[in-house]
Amino acid sequence: MMGFEPRNPAFEQRTRDSFARQSFMTTLGAELTGVRPGEVEIRVPFRADLLQQHGLFHGGLIGTIADNAGGYASFSLMAAEDSVLTVEYKLNLMAPARGDALLSCGRVIRAGRTVTVCRADVRVVRDGREHLCATMQGTFMRLAGASDHALASQSS
Amino acid sequence: MMGFEPRNPAFEQRTRDSFARQSFMTTLGAELTGVRPGEVEIRVPFRADLLQQHGLFHGGLIGTIADNAGGYASFSLMAAEDSVLTVEYKLNLMAPARGDALLSCGRVIRAGRTVTVCRADVRVVRDGREHLCATMQGTFMRLAGASDHALASQSS
Amino acid sequence: MMGFEPRNPAFEQRTRDSFARQSFMTTLGAELTGVRPGEVEIRVPFRADLLQQHGLFHGGLIGTIADNAGGYASFSLMAAEDSVLTVEYKLNLMAPARGDALLSCGRVIRAGRTVTVCRADVRVVRDGREHLCATMQGTFMRLAGASDHALASQSS
Amino acid sequence: MMGFEPRNPAFEQRTRDSFARQSFMTTLGAELTGVRPGEVEIRVPFRADLLQQHGLFHGGLIGTIADNAGGYASFSLMAAEDSVLTVEYKLNLMAPARGDALLSCGRVIRAGRTVTVCRADVRVVRDGREHLCATMQGTFMRLAGASDHALASQSS
Repeated sequence: MMGFEPRNPAFEQRTRDSFARQSFMTTLGAELTGVRPGEVEIRVPFRADLLQQHGLFHGGLIGTIADNAGGYASFSLMAAEDSVLTVEYKLNLMAPARGDALLSCGRVIRAGRTVTVCRADVRVVRDGREHLCATMQGTFMRLAGASDHALASQSS
Repeated sequence: MMGFEPRNPAFEQRTRDSFARQSFMTTLGAELTGVRPGEVEIRVPFRADLLQQHGLFHGGLIGTIADNAGGYASFSLMAAEDSVLTVEYKLNLMAPARGDALLSCGRVIRAGRTVTVCRADVRVVRDGREHLCATMQGTFMRLAGASDHALASQSS
Repeated sequence: MMGFEPRNPAFEQRTRDSFARQSFMTTLGAELTGVRPGEVEIRVPFRADLLQQHGLFHGGLIGTIADNAGGYASFSLMAAEDSVLTVEYKLNLMAPARGDALLSCGRVIRAGRTVTVCRADVRVVRDGREHLCATMQGTFMRLAGASDHALASQSS
Repeated sequence: MMGFEPRNPAFEQRTRDSFARQSFMTTLGAELTGVRPGEVEIRVPFRADLLQQHGLFHGGLIGTIADNAGGYASFSLMAAEDSVLTVEYKLNLMAPARGDALLSCGRVIRAGRTVTVCRADVRVVRDGREHLCATMQGTFMRLAGASDHALASQSS
């Protein structure tokens, strides 16, 4: 959670570049608001087209930015020639996500040679205060020597 | 998985109505392509704005329709005055999701009084064939006597 | 995680009584080494009959005390007439569990009316130092007005 | 789930040998009752020292044989010089486990180069009938060229 040493000094730019290539993040209006070694924050402002049937932020959106924050937290510790895959994640939705924005903070718990385990807490911002609404635990895999640009046919 | 008896004879219309109120599903271009008692199918055709950094369908999108298919499979077995909440879900991404559409099929494994457990398999359609790319196991909760329209402040 | 207010002033004794009724914990040599509101610690000393094929503490044992620490952390916040059920848990095994004892610390993340979400970290003690070897995220359910003694036929 | 081709013709004996080296399985009275390519069954007869506080089979025991059935289902498809690690598993407990024996059946869903995804259903046998009481979804990792005998210091 702290004290992680990035293998790639240009980890922040590389993480931002990869995030920017995700067309789905643009569709969601998601912004990468923080990149530190082993820790990444993503923010999604309220939009009326991101909701579920009760007018809350959709759980799938919450899962998306939880997974992504975990994936990029893992990626931030990897070497310049590595890429990252989500193996699996598990998300608990804990409180109604009604508010002005979602904030997802992903943190590496343990970075192994091949497998990295992360958590992400998702908070909803309402009236200027943050409320924890979901938490994720997930597993991410390093693909050594795989360019982050052209992985389309790669598998675990 | 089979032989489920719906408590609400109008389960299909009620499921379709609820799905139609999810603005996020419209944003994703997701369609509800099948509703049976305890089983729901959702389809998302390819769009260039739904992808991750390697040009595959985004894992968050896959999780969204897996969660939703599980949630509505649960909902299809509930009474007319019930509503449903996702408690948690766990998703394994198993193969690269490159193709023309995603198909998520959610099925109830066990419907308890309060808690329903579901699975959803997500397939990617490529060259007319379906390939399993992800699988979900999740927990859904019945909110008795809660209108599906106005649950925004309800919590588990 | 902090600041939880127990509803039952006798929460510690009630938690210890319930733990003592689990014959499986006796079989494992597991001890309840800490009970605070929303936080429980369980310890299992090394025994040669608790191992997997490589001579490490068995992953099933690790899962058992992670689940139990989460369950009793939830239980510690409940009223005198409530009981607790594990709905589900997810465990990541992160490092080889070789050592003199296992320590599992479960903590409540959010205690809702019906559903409580917990985490548990499991550490292995080796040469007097603790090493994180596994982490769990789980969902627990309050059964209101159910005696903790006679729940055998109850379901979720 | 079907049609898996084992890489090691001696897969059954190798699986049985590895299972027999798990001292914890002996402690639990667990038996390996079926080994097919990608599918393994484990049985635990009732004993009064395997229970939780309400007199049911303990959830930790259920998780142990679910994890193990998944792990050995994965292992059954691996080469003679490979070993297996549990990366993570997620277990839903769905019905009270009261009965004469537990049966866990693990099946491979997808066997990748490094990562294998499995499910396991756990049934409790009561009055001669089997009742589904839990289901698991988990992730297992192949360690290439690692003897199954001496992996104690290996990590993911």
